[in-house]
Amino acid sequence: MADRVTIVDVAARAGVAISSVSSALNGRPGVSEATRARIVKAADELGFVPSLRGRSLSGKKAFAVGLVVHRDPDVLELDPFFASFIGGIESHIDGPGFALVLQIGSDPGEMLDRYRRLAADNRVDGVFLSELETDDPRVPLVRELGLPAVGINAEPGFSMPVVRQDHEAGIRALVSHLVDGGHTRIAFVGGPRHFIHSAQRERAWRDAVESHGLTPGRFVEGGFTYAGGADAADTLLSGGERPTAVLCANDLSAIGFMSEAAHLGFEVPRDISVAGYDGIQLGAYVHPALTTITTSPRRLGFEAARMLLELIDGRRVPDTVIEPAELLVRASTGPVSD
Amino acid sequence: MADRVTIVDVAARAGVAISSVSSALNGRPGVSEATRARIVKAADELGFVPSLRGRSLSGKKAFAVGLVVHRDPDVLELDPFFASFIGGIESHIDGPGFALVLQIGSDPGEMLDRYRRLAADNRVDGVFLSELETDDPRVPLVRELGLPAVGINAEPGFSMPVVRQDHEAGIRALVSHLVDGGHTRIAFVGGPRHFIHSAQRERAWRDAVESHGLTPGRFVEGGFTYAGGADAADTLLSGGERPTAVLCANDLSAIGFMSEAAHLGFEVPRDISVAGYDGIQLGAYVHPALTTITTSPRRLGFEAARMLLELIDGRRVPDTVIEPAELLVRASTGPVSD
Repeated sequence: MADRVTIVDVAARAGVAISSVSSALNGRPGVSEATRARIVKAADELGFVPSLRGRSLSGKKAFAVGLVVHRDPDVLELDPFFASFIGGIESHIDGPGFALVLQIGSDPGEMLDRYRRLAADNRVDGVFLSELETDDPRVPLVRELGLPAVGINAEPGFSMPVVRQDHEAGIRALVSHLVDGGHTRIAFVGGPRHFIHSAQRERAWRDAVESHGLTPGRFVEGGFTYAGGADAADTLLSGGERPTAVLCANDLSAIGFMSEAAHLGFEVPRDISVAGYDGIQLGAYVHPALTTITTSPRRLGFEAARMLLELIDGRRVPDTVIEPAELLVRASTGPVSD
Repeated sequence: MADRVTIVDVAARAGVAISSVSSALNGRPGVSEATRARIVKAADELGFVPSLRGRSLSGKKAFAVGLVVHRDPDVLELDPFFASFIGGIESHIDGPGFALVLQIGSDPGEMLDRYRRLAADNRVDGVFLSELETDDPRVPLVRELGLPAVGINAEPGFSMPVVRQDHEAGIRALVSHLVDGGHTRIAFVGGPRHFIHSAQRERAWRDAVESHGLTPGRFVEGGFTYAGGADAADTLLSGGERPTAVLCANDLSAIGFMSEAAHLGFEVPRDISVAGYDGIQLGAYVHPALTTITTSPRRLGFEAARMLLELIDGRRVPDTVIEPAELLVRASTGPVSD
């Protein structure tokens, strides 16, 4: 391995003691501003990279945060939430010198073990809990492990700090948009009901439809996947009382729904209005472009990272609510045709 | 923090010395098979999780591998390669107790710093180099840092161990399929030419077309993105000598191309045949379903991880060639119409 520039080299070049270099570069007091500037200049000129491992060992910190994604990688391939969410995490943790340890796996039995090992190995100082479920076993586990954790999109009053984006206003606005267009039979293609965010969206749909004095239309589970959305179209469009509009719990299932609807000979939005939830880029490119409720996974990741680093620092952290998810009307929804 | 089961508890339950537990669980000699079995049983019953950090400090290993993704998170959102590739990595490293440290960033200036810091902090024992470029500055850097590294899809004779999937056979088969259908004007929508895998696919297209005694059609850069593919359709389909078939360097740009072609009033494949490269799931769902060349990012990730862990162990590792990418004919290509 090539020789690395060390703190000794920086001290020699700046003409100061090693302890001064350490103080200056770690933001501790005891060094004048002029000396600090000289040390930073010397470090820059030499290309000095301070070792976090040294700080980590003394402070017992891993300088890392963990994200365990509970998905089959093949499903993950089509879901863009995590790329943006991870991008948001990175945009915050990079400055303070933290790294992200990522694990992917869909085996529920292994899932809890992954958190246990992350803790046992001191690999991470805290974790993000995304895609929370009702009575999620990870919640008591991280408490038992003493692992700081931030939850994503759980309800107010959840037992750990949560960052959330309000989903109700956007769904209310969408349902109003549909009712204004004359729709009275508004169906819902949901995600798996044990996910908190899935149940939230379904409830918001029911409440919004009922607030207009209408009866909620049929519910079909679409699994949050493209294929599930296509299957839901088969179910909802084949005979029976067909809906004139459908809200899908995510964009991917909405795009699958639209594609299958076209395949079955239905024109969107003339024969059926279709809306999604998420605001993924792909929705702008499909024909017709997808009406959706745009969320901010990158912002959620950024705020979750900020909160987690504060928790790791031993601070108390209140819940964070970011700007609400917003209705974006595109071409896939329109008035009921005669 | 709750009390954890320690090696002391395991030794007490098995009725052996602590050093015997350590030897038994780390596969070192000096413990009989019967004793080893008793220790493993005791560890299982107590739910003992051995600390890698302990092993790591003594062995100076981080028990982690690094992947730095050089993409804007917003672009990453639409590219499913990394989800599958990371899934493949995880499926190998999980058993030996390694974790994946993931960094995402698109700033080329910061890119090299990320590798320097991963090395300086002893965060990882080795790295994967994906999306290699011609004269990629990461190659001399990892050598300088003494960081074991595995390259993805570089040419034979590359200066580090590489896992690769042959692209030529699939592209040859695709061009033969088009020529058999009567196509003589076959265009190419490429990725950025500084990427090795992009240049490889372009060259294979030229060679395959010329091998049929034809002149390669027009080349347009599509940036590997949906929007870039749509722009390429605008360029290739607006006047001039229109191609009757187009091969796009990835599926995303092919799907963008098809969508824009439909928008411009061209019917695929009657008016123009369109093929992609990658085999992402989305290609099966678009209408018409996309003819493509199917790659194996999950398998690449698995093999890259296997090779990297062997390198970290100090072993010499030959290049690995996985099964070639294969032509998959779907509905977006067909014979030239009269």
